[in-house]
Parts: sequence; C-alpha cells; structure tokens
Amino acid sequence: MAKSRFEYVRTYEQDQILLPNTYIVIRLDGRGFHKFSAHYKFTKPNDIRALGLMNKAAFCLMKQISDICGAYGQSDEYSFVLQRRCRLFDRREAKLVSTFASTFTAYYQFYWNEFFPDQPLDATLLPSFDARAVQYPSLTELRHYLSWRQADCHINNLYNTSFWALILKGGETEKEAEHSLMGTNSSDKNELLFSRFGINYNNEDPVFRKGTMLIRDMAKASSATPEPDLKDEMPLQEKSKRQAEREEKRRRKAEIVELHEDIIGDGFWNESSKWLS
Amino acid sequence: MAKSRFEYVRTYEQDQILLPNTYIVIRLDGRGFHKFSAHYKFTKPNDIRALGLMNKAAFCLMKQISDICGAYGQSDEYSFVLQRRCRLFDRREAKLVSTFASTFTAYYQFYWNEFFPDQPLDATLLPSFDARAVQYPSLTELRHYLSWRQADCHINNLYNTSFWALILKGGETEKEAEHSLMGTNSSDKNELLFSRFGINYNNEDPVFRKGTMLIRDMAKASSATPEPDLKDEMPLQEKSKRQAEREEKRRRKAEIVELHEDIIGDGFWNESSKWLS
Amino acid sequence: MAKSRFEYVRTYEQDQILLPNTYIVIRLDGRGFHKFSAHYKFTKPNDIRALGLMNKAAFCLMKQISDICGAYGQSDEYSFVLQRRCRLFDRREAKLVSTFASTFTAYYQFYWNEFFPDQPLDATLLPSFDARAVQYPSLTELRHYLSWRQADCHINNLYNTSFWALILKGGETEKEAEHSLMGTNSSDKNELLFSRFGINYNNEDPVFRKGTMLIRDMAKASSATPEPDLKDEMPLQEKSKRQAEREEKRRRKAEIVELHEDIIGDGFWNESSKWLS
Amino acid sequence: MAKSRFEYVRTYEQDQILLPNTYIVIRLDGRGFHKFSAHYKFTKPNDIRALGLMNKAAFCLMKQISDICGAYGQSDEYSFVLQRRCRLFDRREAKLVSTFASTFTAYYQFYWNEFFPDQPLDATLLPSFDARAVQYPSLTELRHYLSWRQADCHINNLYNTSFWALILKGGETEKEAEHSLMGTNSSDKNELLFSRFGINYNNEDPVFRKGTMLIRDMAKASSATPEPDLKDEMPLQEKSKRQAEREEKRRRKAEIVELHEDIIGDGFWNESSKWLS
Repeated sequence: MAKSRFEYVRTYEQDQILLPNTYIVIRLDGRGFHKFSAHYKFTKPNDIRALGLMNKAAFCLMKQISDICGAYGQSDEYSFVLQRRCRLFDRREAKLVSTFASTFTAYYQFYWNEFFPDQPLDATLLPSFDARAVQYPSLTELRHYLSWRQADCHINNLYNTSFWALILKGGETEKEAEHSLMGTNSSDKNELLFSRFGINYNNEDPVFRKGTMLIRDMAKASSATPEPDLKDEMPLQEKSKRQAEREEKRRRKAEIVELHEDIIGDGFWNESSKWLS
Repeated sequence: MAKSRFEYVRTYEQDQILLPNTYIVIRLDGRGFHKFSAHYKFTKPNDIRALGLMNKAAFCLMKQISDICGAYGQSDEYSFVLQRRCRLFDRREAKLVSTFASTFTAYYQFYWNEFFPDQPLDATLLPSFDARAVQYPSLTELRHYLSWRQADCHINNLYNTSFWALILKGGETEKEAEHSLMGTNSSDKNELLFSRFGINYNNEDPVFRKGTMLIRDMAKASSATPEPDLKDEMPLQEKSKRQAEREEKRRRKAEIVELHEDIIGDGFWNESSKWLS
Repeated sequence: MAKSRFEYVRTYEQDQILLPNTYIVIRLDGRGFHKFSAHYKFTKPNDIRALGLMNKAAFCLMKQISDICGAYGQSDEYSFVLQRRCRLFDRREAKLVSTFASTFTAYYQFYWNEFFPDQPLDATLLPSFDARAVQYPSLTELRHYLSWRQADCHINNLYNTSFWALILKGGETEKEAEHSLMGTNSSDKNELLFSRFGINYNNEDPVFRKGTMLIRDMAKASSATPEPDLKDEMPLQEKSKRQAEREEKRRRKAEIVELHEDIIGDGFWNESSKWLS
Repeated sequence: MAKSRFEYVRTYEQDQILLPNTYIVIRLDGRGFHKFSAHYKFTKPNDIRALGLMNKAAFCLMKQISDICGAYGQSDEYSFVLQRRCRLFDRREAKLVSTFASTFTAYYQFYWNEFFPDQPLDATLLPSFDARAVQYPSLTELRHYLSWRQADCHINNLYNTSFWALILKGGETEKEAEHSLMGTNSSDKNELLFSRFGINYNNEDPVFRKGTMLIRDMAKASSATPEPDLKDEMPLQEKSKRQAEREEKRRRKAEIVELHEDIIGDGFWNESSKWLS
C-alpha cells in the first residue's frame, strides 16, 4: 500500500518491553467497584454471584490465552501469571495490559446476565478494569506475590465479615461498627464473631476466606511422549517450531482447575511444577 | 489495616510515567477484527452498523472521561487525544491504556444489540481491543498524526471500494481483483470505479472516505466569565482547586460534535482552538 | 566473525530511547564535591580556578560534540542543551549520559594542572561526575530550566557570600554564621553584606553571581548561502546527506561564546535563535 | 533555602529504576579506541600496557565501589557485576552508568603515565568510555553473559594473532592477511600459526587469550562470626543497619583477586559463592 508523508509520526511510538525470563504478573482491578457494587446491590460482605462472575471471566481468559499458567482472584481483582519464558506479544507492556483488561471486561459483561439474571446492566454504569504488569525475577518472589494477595484477602475478609455482622446482625451503624473494630487483631475478631454472633470464621465459605486460584494443570495434559527435561537448557534457547506447536497444543488441552485453599504454605508450592512447568 | 510480611513485593511495581506537557494519543485497535468481521458477517467493503457502533463507544468514552478533547476513528481503530496539560491517572501509561481499552470494550459490547439487532454476540468470539499510548511534543506532530490516520483511511478505503466492486459487481474472484489492482494509483482506481461501475468515489458516504472526528466543542460551552488567556502561564502551573473544578464542569457540559470531513488541510486546524484549548 | 552460543544474552540489553523532538538537557554533577573541594583547598565561597576549570571542560566538550548548542554551569554542575531534532547516539539515554560524564571528566582532569598548578591530583580523590538526561517538550520549559539553574546559582551564591563573610571577615564560627542567616531574605543579606562588610553584592564577579552560559553562536557561522527557513518543515523530515554535512560543518566552525549575564529575562531569549536555531 | 518559581521543571526528571533482585552488569566500552590505539601507537595485536591500564582502572573502581563483586575485561571493554540485592544509587540507571563511566575514566587517565611513560596524553585525543546497564534475572544468564564476553575475547584474539602474524612475520598487507583468513575456522588458524610461524597459540599470554577476571574474594574476608545462611530469607528483606555496616566493612576489607583463566567451564563457577555470595 502507498504510504503518506505523515508516516514519520510512527517513530514516536515507543514500546516498553518487559525483561526476558522474569515471571510476569498482570493484575486487573475493578474501576470504581465500590460505587459499582452499591449500584447493582451486591450482597455484603461478599456476593457469591459477583465472585462467580469474576472467576468465570478469568477462566475464559485463561482458555483463550494459553500463555497464562495460573491466576488468583479475590474481591474485584484478578492476577494472571505468565511463564518466565513467555513471549506473548513480544512482552510489550501496553499490549499485554490493554488486551487483558479488554478481554476480561468482554467476558465479565457477556456473562453478567448468567450471574445476575435479575439485575441487568445499565448504560450509566458499566463494569471496567484497569491493569498493570509486574515482573518478578525469581520463583520466591512470585510465591510471595501470590501470598501477599491471599494474606490481603484474609485480612480484608475477616474485617468485612466482622464489620457487616455488627451492622446486619448487631444493629450497629457503619460508624459504630468501624469504632467497634478499631484496634482489634485477628483473634479479637474471631472471638467477636463467635461470641456475639455464633459465627465460626473458619466455617465461612473458602471462596470468601481464601479467594480463588486457577491453575492450568499440565500434569493431566501430559502426552504419550513426555517433554524432555528442560532444566539445563539456556533460558531463551529457541525451540523448534514443531516443539512449540506441540507445547501450545498441550497447553490448550490442559484442564484448568479451580482451588479455594491455602496458597501461602509449602503444600501448594510443592506441587507447583504441574502448572509452573 | 494490618500488613503482611509479603508486602515488600510491591516495590517491584514500576510505573511508566508519560512526560509532562506532551500531547498523548491513545490508539485502540480491534483484536483479530478480520476474523471477527467475517464471523458476524460485516458488509463489505464497509459496514455502516460497525462504524456506527465504534463511534457510539468512542462518544460514550469521551462523555465519561472529560480529559479527552478529541478522537478520530476509522475501520476498527480509534485514537483519543488528551490535552498537553492532562494529568489523568498521573499520566501512568499502563493505567491509561488498560482503562481506555476496557471501558471502550464495555460500551462496544453494551451497544452491540442496538447496531446488530439480528446478530447476537456469541461467547466464542467477543470483541476486544488493544491500546497503545504515543506522546507528541508539539501541535504540528499531533496534526500530522491525525493526518496520517485519515490518509490511511483514504488509501485503504479507495482500495477496498475498488476491490469489492470488482468482486461484487465485476464478478471477479478475490485473487483476480487483487491482480487487477496491482500497480494502480489513486486516479487509476477512481477511473476504474467510474468507467466500469459508474461509481463516483467522491459521492461515497463521507464516514467511509473520511472517517469520524469527534471533538469536544468548548466554544459552545463557554461560561459567562471567559477563561483568562493561558498563553503566558507556565506549562504546569497549578490551578486553584476552584479553577480546576470549573474547567472540569465546562468540559462535562460541552457538546461532543461528530465530523466526517477533511482534517488534513488548514480549514480544520484553523478552528482547533475550540477543542484543543 | 563466528558467534558463540552465549550470544542470546544480548537480547536482554534494552535501550531507553528519548522521545523525538524534545529538548534534551544533560546535567552533570560533581560526585562528593563537598569533600573534594575541601581536600584540594578550594577558596571559599567561590574558587575562580575551579570555575575556570569547569568552564574549560565544558567548552572542550562542546567543541568535540557539535550537537550541543548551549551549556550553563555554576558551582560543580554543568547542563548541556541538545537541539530538539538532535539524533546523537540515536537519543539513547545511557549512551548519552555515560559519554558526557566520561568525556567531561577526561577534560577536567587533563586541564587540572593548568588551573591548579600547585595542587596536583592524588589517587585517593579523583574528580568524577554523574549525569542525568531530562526532556523538555517546549522552548518555554527549556527557558524555565535554565532560569531555574541561574536562580539557584543566585540564591546559593548570595547565601554563601554572606556566610563566608561572617566567618572570614566577621570572625563567626560556621554554626554562628548559619544562625545569623536563619530567616533572612535576599535584601537582608544584601544589607548585611553592605553594612557590616562594605560589600556591594552587585559588584561581585559576574561569574559568581550569574554562572556561565556557553552558546554556539551560529549567527557568526553563517555561510554565504543562508539556510532556508525551516519553520514549516516536518519535525523529523530527513535532510539530504549533503545538507546534514553542511550543517555539521557550520556547527563545527561556529564560535563558542562565554557569557556571564542574566539568562532569565527576555533580553537573552530574544536572541536565542542564534544558538537554538 | 528559598525556591524559585521555576522549580516545577524538576517534575520532568524521570528516573529509570532497574528491577529489584536482578544481577546488574555495567559494561564500559572505549570510545573510538580504534583511532585512539593508533594515535598512541598501541602494539599489535595486543598491547600489554593498555591491558594493564584497563585492569588497574577496573581494580581501582572495585576498590572504591564495594558493591561491585566481580569484573571481566578484554580489549577496550570492562563489565562490572553487581549483586542481585545491590541497592547502589537506588538502582537508578543513569546514575549508575554515568558514575561508572566517569570514575573509570578518571582512573584510566590518572594512571596513564605509569603504563605509557613515553607517550603522554595530548588534548586532541583523550580516553573516554561509554557505559550501559544490563539486567539478568538468574545466575545462569549472568554466567552466560561472562562466557559470551570470554568467547568473544577468544575468537577475536585468535583472529588478531593470526592476522598480525601474517602481516608482521609473513610480510602480507592488511588486505592480503584478511584474504588469507577468510573462511578459516579455529583449528585452521591454530594450524596456520604453528606451521608458518612456529607459534603455539596455547602458549600465548593468558591475559590475551582469556582476558581478565577480577573477583572480590569474600572467602578470605570472612570474620570470626560467619554470616548466617541467607538462602531462605526474602529477596529484599531489610537488614539491620548494623548488619549492613558489617557487611560493607567485610566487602571493603576483602582482597580483589586477578585471574586469567577459563570462566566458561564449571571449575570457575563451582567456586562462585566466594565472590557472588
């Protein structure tokens, strides 16, 4: 095609390329979900429909983009983990974050009616998400990242469970509930929930307490001919095209498993090779 | 709230901040729209419904984000222009591109049924968009950027109009049409359209030939007390909070005007002060 | 040449490219010059030898690198201004800052003996400089940048002149002098210098009060055939090779002029076209 | 101190921060050393004085900046390795590369007379160096980086040794020598050196064949109370101030050892814990 004399403005486009061989985490956050959840009358402290919809959208994104090996979600956020050797979009940051945010939004909206059949979306307040990419050079940091998000889930959920019990069952105002919880630690809150409201926090739904971990279970996707041990290869050694296609196929076939369990302790990480191969 | 010992992983988050006082253009592109447009049977060479939906989504995004002063769209792409002094999201690149991509997607999907009432979206192929941010230090470059996109619209549309005339009206195969157009210049194609198919290209719908320019017309939004001349102020001088709120209000009230005209020549730019204030 | 299998590590090299068509300022700062100036017994509050050496090194750097169109220095810092359209080192940030820092250091050390004949450098404390690159999209900001540095020179020099007058002529300790100046404004210090020490600050050496501005005076370098007016050309339009060589030649021939005058007011900037063409 | 109204221009300064917990390599390269080495009549194919001076400057830089744990040099280049957890200059890229380039230049020039007593530097051609920073997320990549530079040293030196033997001993012109070596592999060159000039390449000075590796030998610097095992700690866990000072002291006391041996094979890396702790 012919080119115009204005073409030179392309030279101003600068791609931010993420460093090779780091774990990339792309975290999506709901925009203005405080207002959004009020507008669509989300149940307090947790709305199982809203969490289900988040998980559905994340699941669909993982199905579509096979480079995602795992994802962790809680509240209105979702973190997607890409393999160290991932080359999706040549590791261009803007392309990664915009595509993830857009595609997730599309699924979230598409499945809205399935999860909120009585609450149609209206044009004045549509769901949207921003995204950021973070790089972690080692597995330890990736583990600590996911642990950070789950610890955050725990801290927030214990607080919110107590806060809304005081309001919904204890008849306190939001102000009073906030005051009641000031200075309390975890065991104070556990005690309060149990003694005043008969709630054993540990019996709360794990999806509330632990969030949701999605993993692409490559163990179950193993083909007849196992992959050769890759440990000693160079980090970025090119694979043959055929090898790459075979791996892509395995990733597409692999089952995506949903977990609501502890991802901080060793148990989860002892088996991480099956999704973080 | 309590913090976990994993909190340190936050220090790995690095924000790419766009330079102050440059024009920021955020361009969205449809992901895989070749396949998408075939799947949903878009009319060739142009589908007025699809362009209408793009314009609707862009209009809604401009309504929601008042920092956008103008936008240009054609085919499956849309470019949004932010003022030099814009501080939206502290000019963080990832936040800007992900939010624009997500929000545009939300509107595009929400209004789909209005533009394609007989063609419901199905889960196997949802619309999504990637985005990039480009910085232009001077008005000349911004003008050249928009000119580049409109020149691109012209070149592509003239080609596509000829290509599909050869197929739909001339009975050629795609291969043959491609061959017929090889080596032709603009006037060859104009001549071909006219002599063989009686089509005067200049009478084609301007939205096809020129694309769509949306401007936030601040001239019509002027309040009784006009803004003082800002020419001599320092580029980043802080405005008082009240000034900022008043300007925000004016931007929200301003009409968004849709144009399908030449944006390369001086005519359009002689009046640019009304939207690029 | 043959390549080794380790070559892939090159892909980790990421160049930070400065945006096209912005003014680039590269500012060098002496490393640990508080200690350095004490070690080599610099005169207080200003050492004319040290400033002369800074100016000499800056002059030599401008002679060597013809892309530099101007430079401003004071104390142990020097800022070098590159044209908007400058393409030196493809605008790679690391290459620019490291080369400027290294080359300036080489000249500073080479001419040391000329300015400090009685004070040879010793290996335990050699002069070195760090550097940073800053981008300014408009001429206004470049002007404000240079104004900022000269205002800084003024503020510091007035303080230091007063401080050392109190010590060297007033017999105060450093502590006492610091205390004497606490809360004083400019006119207080002017008054103090005059009334107590008979010093009219405005008669102090301009190199102390105003710092040093070096400009590459292209007006005097103009060839018989004048350059065509470039105002309307595209910012990055390619010049012919011959044009580029001719301009390079003109830049090399141009005289570098040393000024010690006000660079904040309009006077200096009304004539800026001769060096900032 | 008072601030001027121009202070806002500081907001345009953007620091590029290197990712935490990656190995940082800063590689310096001589600027225009082809011309420089001809000007100062360096011996061909290797000048032992020039290499000695490079090593001296690198040694001094390591002495001054204790964060450097190792360095590898050959020809007119030197690569400095920083620990993963290094926080020197808050990992600001421009500050790192400019400081390294400047300080290395200062030492190189200062010790010039010691290595080239009969060849004083002249102002028309002073030595200078540029620098770049590269990040490697894993030890494997760092090892491959250093292996790459040593393989490069080997390939170049074998070529240059053959090339200059053909000229200096074989009486060929540069053109002829280039032609003679076209298409030869390593063993061809070894054979040529031996059969035509009686040179056993493996007996050449190791500093030519292997380059120079400097390591900060922490093993010999160990204090009575050994450091606790740090393997399980978080990558960025804060050390107590006392711990940090103690480690700094140990690093300053540690001997810097100069090696001219193979750094590609396992032998060197089996003992890497003593400098890459």
